[in-house]
Amino acid sequence: MTETPWSDGISFPAALEQAARMTDAALGKLLVVPPGLESRVYQAMRYSALAPGKRLRPFLVLASAHLFGVAHRCALQVAAAIEMVHAYSMIHDDLPAMDNSDLRRGRPTCHKQFDDATAILAGDGLLTTAFAGAAGAAGMVGGQMIDLIAEHQTLDIGAITRLQRMKTGALIAFACEAGAILAKAPHELRTALRGYAHDLGLAYQIADDLLDVEGSAAETGKPVGADIAAGKATFVSILGVTRARAQGELLVRQAMAHLDLFEQRAELLREAARFVITRRT
Amino acid sequence: MTETPWSDGISFPAALEQAARMTDAALGKLLVVPPGLESRVYQAMRYSALAPGKRLRPFLVLASAHLFGVAHRCALQVAAAIEMVHAYSMIHDDLPAMDNSDLRRGRPTCHKQFDDATAILAGDGLLTTAFAGAAGAAGMVGGQMIDLIAEHQTLDIGAITRLQRMKTGALIAFACEAGAILAKAPHELRTALRGYAHDLGLAYQIADDLLDVEGSAAETGKPVGADIAAGKATFVSILGVTRARAQGELLVRQAMAHLDLFEQRAELLREAARFVITRRT
Repeated sequence: MTETPWSDGISFPAALEQAARMTDAALGKLLVVPPGLESRVYQAMRYSALAPGKRLRPFLVLASAHLFGVAHRCALQVAAAIEMVHAYSMIHDDLPAMDNSDLRRGRPTCHKQFDDATAILAGDGLLTTAFAGAAGAAGMVGGQMIDLIAEHQTLDIGAITRLQRMKTGALIAFACEAGAILAKAPHELRTALRGYAHDLGLAYQIADDLLDVEGSAAETGKPVGADIAAGKATFVSILGVTRARAQGELLVRQAMAHLDLFEQRAELLREAARFVITRRT
Repeated sequence: MTETPWSDGISFPAALEQAARMTDAALGKLLVVPPGLESRVYQAMRYSALAPGKRLRPFLVLASAHLFGVAHRCALQVAAAIEMVHAYSMIHDDLPAMDNSDLRRGRPTCHKQFDDATAILAGDGLLTTAFAGAAGAAGMVGGQMIDLIAEHQTLDIGAITRLQRMKTGALIAFACEAGAILAKAPHELRTALRGYAHDLGLAYQIADDLLDVEGSAAETGKPVGADIAAGKATFVSILGVTRARAQGELLVRQAMAHLDLFEQRAELLREAARFVITRRT
């Protein structure tokens, strides 16, 4: 596993790519397929957790940890754990009993590639392994992650859209704060990161809603217009495209303003905010 | 919540009943139904976790904690967490994609009473809340529970029977050891409890297999002959009724022998071993 921290002048695309490589290496080590009968569930866990993706949440963990000089090795455990929680929630949300989605990250969803039972178990396995990883890396982070997930498990079926949104925002927020938690950073710095994360999470969701309307399936790797077809309320269905985009851009500026007290050290996080609203996937 | 520890001469049935009452009270507090849209999933979590049952696993936690003088309040958190993990695994195992069971503890299974999506989410919620509870009560216990569950999530669909068995045994074993972990008990005492737990878990599974053949649905609250109908390999299908019962009784004697070094203090755990093989539900 590469443990080289980012060099000072590294570009955002290079840092994002390196974060993805390191996270995938960590995930690969955590999700070794055992020999024998158990292998199928592990294959499904790897299939979903290692599916092509931006690995934005792991990047946010590593970038916030970098801000406070936290060791990469420790932050990487938490980054991998957060990606596993993300993968778990996608697997269960895609199930026929839930959103019944066939396509995710340009590939068949877990239950289409394997079967419903394997997908249920793979999600359970990823959630549990994530807790083990985050709790092992730093008890404090493990505890806070558990609190976070517990709080957002409580969705009603009729409120799935609202919950998905809450989960997306909450997991992104936790990813941003994780570095500060690991570093036992002073209160005001942690609050600043939380403010950044809150605005970033909303901007991310707006961008998702815009991509559902304006994106292409080839780029996003999932069906376009799915939210509209399902009659889901989104930022775009409520605000319209123009106002939704303006709102997203405002949120990105707000997010960056929260980082002022970190001065130049937070440049990667600023770039991440710009990326979130301009991304095509 | 009643915090009265068991009096010294308390009978096993009375101690078991009190453990169940205390555990249910703790579960009730942990699983408060929030107002609004989220309430349905919480209702499903309560429906399954608070379904009528012996609460043997919580009893084992409280009895092993009692052995070392661990505070009831702390042990109770772990007892409730273990019952939630048990309930989570039952909910997901009963799903149509898995065992497709309609009846559990004499009532419709979670997905029959609610729906598949709610049952998936209720299981996820119970698993997560269990981690929060066990991690909150005592970080060490939380970490060990996570390791335990992570290890036994790795079942292949074709090996569900084997896994169920592993899960049953592993969760019972962890319940027995939890008191020793909470008390930071010396190595040899913990090893003794683990030996007891291992034999108890196997005896429990043999009794389950015997009840599937000889029990009545009215008593067990689930369909009789389900294992045979599903073509599952059980101790009874392999050994036959007579040898399976003899094996169960041997295991109970072995389990009790492991408790010798606790002398009279382990009397409740000895009674629990006798109960496991003679129970009718």
